[in-house]
Amino acid sequence: MVVVLKKNPDPKQLRHLTSWIESMGIKIHMSEGSMQTVMGLVGDTTRIDTDLIEALDIVEAVKRIQEPYKDANRKFHAENTVIKVGEAAFGSGECPIIAGPCSVESEEQLMSIARSVKAAGAKLLRGGAFKPRTSPYAFQGLAGDGIRLLSLAKKETGLPIVSEIMDISKIDMFEDVDIIQIGARNMQNFELLKEIGKAKQPILLKRGLANTLQELLMSAEYIMASGNKNVILCERGIRTFETATRNTLDLSAIPMLKSMTHLPVIVDPSHASGIAALVKPMSMAAAACGADGLIIEVHNDPKHALCDGPQSITPEEFSDVAENVRRMNEIGYRG
Amino acid sequence: MVVVLKKNPDPKQLRHLTSWIESMGIKIHMSEGSMQTVMGLVGDTTRIDTDLIEALDIVEAVKRIQEPYKDANRKFHAENTVIKVGEAAFGSGECPIIAGPCSVESEEQLMSIARSVKAAGAKLLRGGAFKPRTSPYAFQGLAGDGIRLLSLAKKETGLPIVSEIMDISKIDMFEDVDIIQIGARNMQNFELLKEIGKAKQPILLKRGLANTLQELLMSAEYIMASGNKNVILCERGIRTFETATRNTLDLSAIPMLKSMTHLPVIVDPSHASGIAALVKPMSMAAAACGADGLIIEVHNDPKHALCDGPQSITPEEFSDVAENVRRMNEIGYRG
Amino acid sequence: MVVVLKKNPDPKQLRHLTSWIESMGIKIHMSEGSMQTVMGLVGDTTRIDTDLIEALDIVEAVKRIQEPYKDANRKFHAENTVIKVGEAAFGSGECPIIAGPCSVESEEQLMSIARSVKAAGAKLLRGGAFKPRTSPYAFQGLAGDGIRLLSLAKKETGLPIVSEIMDISKIDMFEDVDIIQIGARNMQNFELLKEIGKAKQPILLKRGLANTLQELLMSAEYIMASGNKNVILCERGIRTFETATRNTLDLSAIPMLKSMTHLPVIVDPSHASGIAALVKPMSMAAAACGADGLIIEVHNDPKHALCDGPQSITPEEFSDVAENVRRMNEIGYRG
Amino acid sequence: MVVVLKKNPDPKQLRHLTSWIESMGIKIHMSEGSMQTVMGLVGDTTRIDTDLIEALDIVEAVKRIQEPYKDANRKFHAENTVIKVGEAAFGSGECPIIAGPCSVESEEQLMSIARSVKAAGAKLLRGGAFKPRTSPYAFQGLAGDGIRLLSLAKKETGLPIVSEIMDISKIDMFEDVDIIQIGARNMQNFELLKEIGKAKQPILLKRGLANTLQELLMSAEYIMASGNKNVILCERGIRTFETATRNTLDLSAIPMLKSMTHLPVIVDPSHASGIAALVKPMSMAAAACGADGLIIEVHNDPKHALCDGPQSITPEEFSDVAENVRRMNEIGYRG
Repeated sequence: MVVVLKKNPDPKQLRHLTSWIESMGIKIHMSEGSMQTVMGLVGDTTRIDTDLIEALDIVEAVKRIQEPYKDANRKFHAENTVIKVGEAAFGSGECPIIAGPCSVESEEQLMSIARSVKAAGAKLLRGGAFKPRTSPYAFQGLAGDGIRLLSLAKKETGLPIVSEIMDISKIDMFEDVDIIQIGARNMQNFELLKEIGKAKQPILLKRGLANTLQELLMSAEYIMASGNKNVILCERGIRTFETATRNTLDLSAIPMLKSMTHLPVIVDPSHASGIAALVKPMSMAAAACGADGLIIEVHNDPKHALCDGPQSITPEEFSDVAENVRRMNEIGYRG
Repeated sequence: MVVVLKKNPDPKQLRHLTSWIESMGIKIHMSEGSMQTVMGLVGDTTRIDTDLIEALDIVEAVKRIQEPYKDANRKFHAENTVIKVGEAAFGSGECPIIAGPCSVESEEQLMSIARSVKAAGAKLLRGGAFKPRTSPYAFQGLAGDGIRLLSLAKKETGLPIVSEIMDISKIDMFEDVDIIQIGARNMQNFELLKEIGKAKQPILLKRGLANTLQELLMSAEYIMASGNKNVILCERGIRTFETATRNTLDLSAIPMLKSMTHLPVIVDPSHASGIAALVKPMSMAAAACGADGLIIEVHNDPKHALCDGPQSITPEEFSDVAENVRRMNEIGYRG
Repeated sequence: MVVVLKKNPDPKQLRHLTSWIESMGIKIHMSEGSMQTVMGLVGDTTRIDTDLIEALDIVEAVKRIQEPYKDANRKFHAENTVIKVGEAAFGSGECPIIAGPCSVESEEQLMSIARSVKAAGAKLLRGGAFKPRTSPYAFQGLAGDGIRLLSLAKKETGLPIVSEIMDISKIDMFEDVDIIQIGARNMQNFELLKEIGKAKQPILLKRGLANTLQELLMSAEYIMASGNKNVILCERGIRTFETATRNTLDLSAIPMLKSMTHLPVIVDPSHASGIAALVKPMSMAAAACGADGLIIEVHNDPKHALCDGPQSITPEEFSDVAENVRRMNEIGYRG
Repeated sequence: MVVVLKKNPDPKQLRHLTSWIESMGIKIHMSEGSMQTVMGLVGDTTRIDTDLIEALDIVEAVKRIQEPYKDANRKFHAENTVIKVGEAAFGSGECPIIAGPCSVESEEQLMSIARSVKAAGAKLLRGGAFKPRTSPYAFQGLAGDGIRLLSLAKKETGLPIVSEIMDISKIDMFEDVDIIQIGARNMQNFELLKEIGKAKQPILLKRGLANTLQELLMSAEYIMASGNKNVILCERGIRTFETATRNTLDLSAIPMLKSMTHLPVIVDPSHASGIAALVKPMSMAAAACGADGLIIEVHNDPKHALCDGPQSITPEEFSDVAENVRRMNEIGYRG
């Protein structure tokens, strides 16, 4: 961390600042110039709040050189973290696909979709039992019954299951869930992050609609600081001024994140645009630039899905997408 | 709601659509043209998911005419909702100020600030006991102890207290809190919204950093649908590309929201910019365009505040702000 | 400027860098630490491209301490620049209003509006002769005839006139125009900025829809570097995800800009929201937080205006707005 | 276009509206309901300003069904427009690469880069002679000398050349330029668009930093309406809140635009992120999702480039990128 002081700083305030910094076990290297003096802080500055220092009268500017995250930082963990669930290995160079309906609606619907996505090569089954809906009047999911149907589908197909948790009080219901998802709207629900960090399963953490890559890593850091090191990051589109697509899929986040962290990074092309026709090209693009996996909404009858129908593809379309993703991944970017 | 059909829609699909709509008790008026046919839907369309209809092959476009919120809608509730807490009346034409530290840090700090903001005319005391911090390594608040100190300050000064809840499991601790705040990062924590809707106290609901005014009203609708009609909306800055200020305070949200809803709308100028020097001008501007109140961070020693120091003003500065807000409110916009 | 070097920088590259910097007459102060070495650059760093330095292998980070603008910088020009045009003095503490139709449509229309805005207290008349329209099929303005009608209105009412230039080849037509406007979409039309910097009249420079405050000042710097020091900055709303208003008016830009620059800052509440009903409250808010002026669209028949009807107010409404702005300005923020 | 009227519209105003619409040769189909009446407008509504209608007292809402662009609209031109320049065919299913330095700096620099990008498979040479720079103190390009050097490089290598025009008064200098570029900051410089529409060469039109896909097509429409039907669209990153990358590359714009228009769509991965290391993965992703071409910055000595060094790759790196793009394009998305 570098602290730039104003010209002629008050000596008393300066002593106060240096002793406070040194009390945290951090060394200071001073460089005095005619226009400004620069303090170089050497040591573990992760816990220093730059805002606090910037608020001081004698300080002109503060620049963090070290990142504020440690457990998630590739600098301290050069090798990719590989997270294995069933036949999938996220972070291994493969691009496994998690597929399934937005919401679990019925046994018949779920079984039918589960069988067809397995046949098409999906490695995990997704399905929402608790649904974050903008309107209180919209379908909120089957809750416990949804989870039970997912377990049934897992038993029948052998596919591990992925489902979203919205409230830590429901954690007991997720015993049989193989990957627990934290949705975009909960990315900074810090209480949930702290608690889910105690779960034994890997966590699929979605980027918030208005969150930077650094904030995504800080949220991963919350989970990791609670003990759970198996976090899969997921880019799912950010909010911009563009209205042709629901959100703007930020694919450069994949190589960028992978330079910042050792955690696997997957992509959700379904929620990003909200348009079924864009799922195939964006899945292919994601695989091409090094995505560690995909999570795709598939519905046997998208036009009558109880939620997010317009962004779901059919099992036939999914089969085509999966085949193309495989071909892309073979020659895709490896960093 | 208006549904525009494509040219020559498949008759079977059309029958399917009309019977589904009519099954919800909604009447349809058809207008057939040479280029397209338009269906006008008359009745309570609040529960209809426009995405579902838009996904149909035979549909060109859907336009909602009615808003998707009811309890919060000014169309169905023309009079302002006035929420009285202590000496403050939010929505009455006054502009009461809630003031206090970002975080409760100690008894001495809180009492000192509480007395001075009361003397300067604040009508309520704010203070964070549970703090949503981006970093897991940053100060997270005094939790239960913080709430107890707020109660103490309330007893001593008579000021009602406002504090943020992050997790419904802590609701018992908020017994003595007069207004419960839902922070920006929890605006779409729907489980929390549903549960807090059962609380007896008024709720202060902050707009999310990337949420539209309609989404803010949908979140208010969640709380109201659970039974709690006393929701105070709060604009606190949205996330944009600008980096000179931390967020961009959207003051046009005040008159805009007040045309959409009967709920009171207040402003947080402290979090919006993150810069203490902007608190006074933005407070004045908010009062000028009709804000129903303000929530302002005040700290006796902003340079050593444990969080958000750079945006806090001193008690002396607050006194000046409060006086100017009063003068602005007297001649401010009344709609 | 502060340059943070990586650990153990290559000595040859380092010598190359230091001699390059020193060749520009800038002094270097080195501070060597165990983790990193920091170079403090002292002198006029305005012309240094930070990107060039950041690209070097041996560099970890670069932080500019001095702003990249000089002529527009308040640090080098502490006093407000006051720009007097007719009876208006922008930057003097007053809040003069420029009013008139979006487009000049006819002599009758313009004269009628000019007389009524003068009666209501407007100090200048605005009117578009060249209109930047998103669609090539929309009304593009009366061009030279529009300017001639503005001159006529000026002669009759005595009000100085303001009009937008879109192409420097038309500059001869602007001989009689008192303030030349550069529109938001041309804020970074650098060729136009350079040329308009040779005009003798003050320039009204609007902030681009996606431009930061620093970029706005850099564009003002282009004009000033060409010789014209009379630049009036104008906040007119930025593009965000919010769709309830056409753009988001960034009123915190007023006090923020005024801390960065000595140039006057005015506000256009009409284009910002695109909604006539918001013009009054936002004008009042702008005056309250220290705006040096306002530019407001007024139309005698907004419902049949050839462009931007929905955001124009009537002369009667304008009279009310002007009166309220006067009262706000009297007690408004003074920095 | 669909116009939704308010309940019980004033009959006189309604007659006024209907006769105005019919005077433009458009037919009206009325659908009267108990809550609202809907007017369906059938005919060429391209020239109707929806804002004008929305401003009327009797109107609740207006929804455009037809797009406001015609020449660029795929609905009226189902086949891809293929633009052939030298050996490149944009829109043909190939993915030709335009490569070269950000700025032309010297004959030696340009010749060296031109030869190496040709050897690596680039089909056109790019180079800036007129540079849009945020700061008036930054290098502004070699102007006419730059164009002359490009011509020289064209003569020697046979590569057609691409360069940006910033001001129509310089058009004579572009006689030998094969594709004329309109930069992002000039996307809505409507005067330039109108004039460049008279040029005989194809136009490379970059998307503005805050412009929607529809606005990009409206700007293409300006050029096409002036007579020039050969417009190549270019996605180059949009401005968002994310700061890890300079802009956010919106790759979903490729398939989305290609569904809206018949014009070719290429991608600029260099400007999008501003980070050289992201050029390869993003080029691969663009080719994977169907880009009709790429424009990439290559510099023989990126660390000493006079502009945009950090985003330029070396000729060796370019060779690797080009090879990977070829392989991606072979199995890429075809719509």
